[in-house]
Amino acid sequence: MPDVSKSPLAPRRFPRIPGVAGVRLAVAAAGIKYKRRNDLLLAALPQGTTAAGVFTRSGTASAPVIWCRDNITSGRARALLVNSGNANAFTGDRGMHDVRWSATRVAKALACRPAGVLVASTGVIGEPLPVHRIDTVFPRLIGELGNASWYQAARAITTTDTFPKGAYRRCQIGNTEITVAGIAKGSGMIAPNMATMLAFVFTDARIPAAVLRSVHSATVDRSFNCITVDSDTSTSDTSILVATGQARNAEPESISDRALKNFKQALLEVYVDLATQVVKDGEGASKFITIDVEGATSNTAARKVGLAIAESPLVKTAIAGEDANWGRIVMAVGKSQAQVDQQLLSVSMGGVLIAHRGQRVAGYTESIVDQHLTGSEIEITVNLGLGAGRARVWTCDLTHEYIRINAEYRT
Amino acid sequence: MPDVSKSPLAPRRFPRIPGVAGVRLAVAAAGIKYKRRNDLLLAALPQGTTAAGVFTRSGTASAPVIWCRDNITSGRARALLVNSGNANAFTGDRGMHDVRWSATRVAKALACRPAGVLVASTGVIGEPLPVHRIDTVFPRLIGELGNASWYQAARAITTTDTFPKGAYRRCQIGNTEITVAGIAKGSGMIAPNMATMLAFVFTDARIPAAVLRSVHSATVDRSFNCITVDSDTSTSDTSILVATGQARNAEPESISDRALKNFKQALLEVYVDLATQVVKDGEGASKFITIDVEGATSNTAARKVGLAIAESPLVKTAIAGEDANWGRIVMAVGKSQAQVDQQLLSVSMGGVLIAHRGQRVAGYTESIVDQHLTGSEIEITVNLGLGAGRARVWTCDLTHEYIRINAEYRT
Repeated sequence: MPDVSKSPLAPRRFPRIPGVAGVRLAVAAAGIKYKRRNDLLLAALPQGTTAAGVFTRSGTASAPVIWCRDNITSGRARALLVNSGNANAFTGDRGMHDVRWSATRVAKALACRPAGVLVASTGVIGEPLPVHRIDTVFPRLIGELGNASWYQAARAITTTDTFPKGAYRRCQIGNTEITVAGIAKGSGMIAPNMATMLAFVFTDARIPAAVLRSVHSATVDRSFNCITVDSDTSTSDTSILVATGQARNAEPESISDRALKNFKQALLEVYVDLATQVVKDGEGASKFITIDVEGATSNTAARKVGLAIAESPLVKTAIAGEDANWGRIVMAVGKSQAQVDQQLLSVSMGGVLIAHRGQRVAGYTESIVDQHLTGSEIEITVNLGLGAGRARVWTCDLTHEYIRINAEYRT
Repeated sequence: MPDVSKSPLAPRRFPRIPGVAGVRLAVAAAGIKYKRRNDLLLAALPQGTTAAGVFTRSGTASAPVIWCRDNITSGRARALLVNSGNANAFTGDRGMHDVRWSATRVAKALACRPAGVLVASTGVIGEPLPVHRIDTVFPRLIGELGNASWYQAARAITTTDTFPKGAYRRCQIGNTEITVAGIAKGSGMIAPNMATMLAFVFTDARIPAAVLRSVHSATVDRSFNCITVDSDTSTSDTSILVATGQARNAEPESISDRALKNFKQALLEVYVDLATQVVKDGEGASKFITIDVEGATSNTAARKVGLAIAESPLVKTAIAGEDANWGRIVMAVGKSQAQVDQQLLSVSMGGVLIAHRGQRVAGYTESIVDQHLTGSEIEITVNLGLGAGRARVWTCDLTHEYIRINAEYRT
């Protein structure tokens, strides 16, 4: 992990996340890449746990992603093994062999099938996974099951992250108290669909696999698929949601079951919390940017415009420089390829209307917006004036520190 | 123009470009934004000049782009007026009015129709064009026609450029000697389709408008549409090719006329020369990167992969840091959304095969590639192993200087 101090946008502290019934965590230091820190996480899950996953759309997906995509179709999981420091990506047949070996190792210890062991890896691409190191610490990892905290788990999966990321919410399904708790990592190579971003969310709710899959996809779409740090899509992006069923709530029948309303909201809050923490740890980030797009022809078009703004290096550097260069926002809207009529386009920053229906508003004074830009939370609102489509997208600014981190990451 | 020293990748000197029969140039300092430098260029063209243009695909195209797109359909031009410092983009009705006013002013002086006057503007977006300043220097501009050099013309159209860009070639159509000469500007907001990039190329050849249009599009596709600096698409990108016909060669009938072979090659050389100069002046560039993609299912797919690599901030920062982080190249290939089979993928840098058919080659030693990366001209070759499609794409690295320039551009 490069020697970088904590992001100025980091939350003040890691939340006090309660346990999730049925989930037992363990961490270990295998020395895969990093020295003197935990880099392995194992989560054991009880029988009957349902699981859903969303993975990178990269054409060069990592071996663990290929493994998980194949195995999560069962909708079941008994364990989750995660390592940091090595992505096991672009490692050919050996990479697939190493995943199978790891899953089998966990399966034996937990008396389940290898297919029930989900695996995720994050770190350098193209280097073989040093499985012998994992092998050495494996007995200890198994022996420690149940002893690790969420904080330790969140730390073990980090790479260039400057702080561990966790979130939780309590909610109800019917009259049953439910806990939703999650951890995530990610700070660079962050873009939707998805990012070098791993997110693992655990709930004790009882949710059938098909329902869990729908809820998870819809939630990821409004959280991790609405963030970008640098527009680069990783080989390893993984979001996994597991439900242990230990809360014994009445089983919902579909995603539209009214009993799920409170749960879906809690889940979305956990995902948005984790996703925005990833952005707040965006490599070199000094400002957190929320972009609201309204008046698009559809929600999809709105997100397209939002992401075009969020991914523009020129918008992001202007904000880093606290420069109210709103012309670059117009440029980014233009390049989005979404339907746009510049005569109807309005742009605001920090709640101040700068341009309305195709031109700068009369009497616009930059000083108020400049004031807003000196803060660390920046708001951009774009109204396309075409329809009812809307989306909210989050990103961070592009600073010298991003360059420093990424020009020095591997060496 | 921010106080930045000349790009380390700049050519040693501006070429000694000969005159093009029929083209008369003038420059003037209107003080649109910059002080004490020329910011207006006028090129007068003789009757019978044919013209072709390619413009930004931005949904928020500038007023001059809208004007040119409408008027170039005639295939004729009598003048070209260019200003730097203000893009006249997102300026509403007033912007269109200002273009019409400028064109009419030139048309009166040259006794032609306003529709024959092509206009281009580059600079800040969203601020009204200060036409009164142009008005003041206008008589002088007309009076100076024929007195400006290519060097002066190339300098007058620059914004954040650290050096003026020009190129020329001589060739033959039949037995007639032909000159092709061009100037360009651009250094940021550079991406294909196109970039804040203006290119104006002039030839004395006699080419019917329809043929000129085809030749121009094909040439832009293999030059300006194969470069990227920061993936941002400008509101103002313009490439215009004019042919004065003064060389009186036999008129070619189609783009496939054999007499054009030599001319097409010369034209492509001029465009690639200008396009790569734009990349070499990429904001903050310290390394010039040539990416060859082979084995794609089509040339279009190859270009898509090449641009995904060229636009990846993680690839560009790694190269800035002289780090042979080829895993990021694999990541970028994966995110391109072109057809990819990672089992067939090979990656080389500086001619050294690093990964072959889906994994790192046995015995690969990074030190040779590291050596290559210390140079200023970097070569990346990717073979997808799928077909005969190929493309060459150019970009530059992403450095601290990019951030510095763009966080401070406007203020």
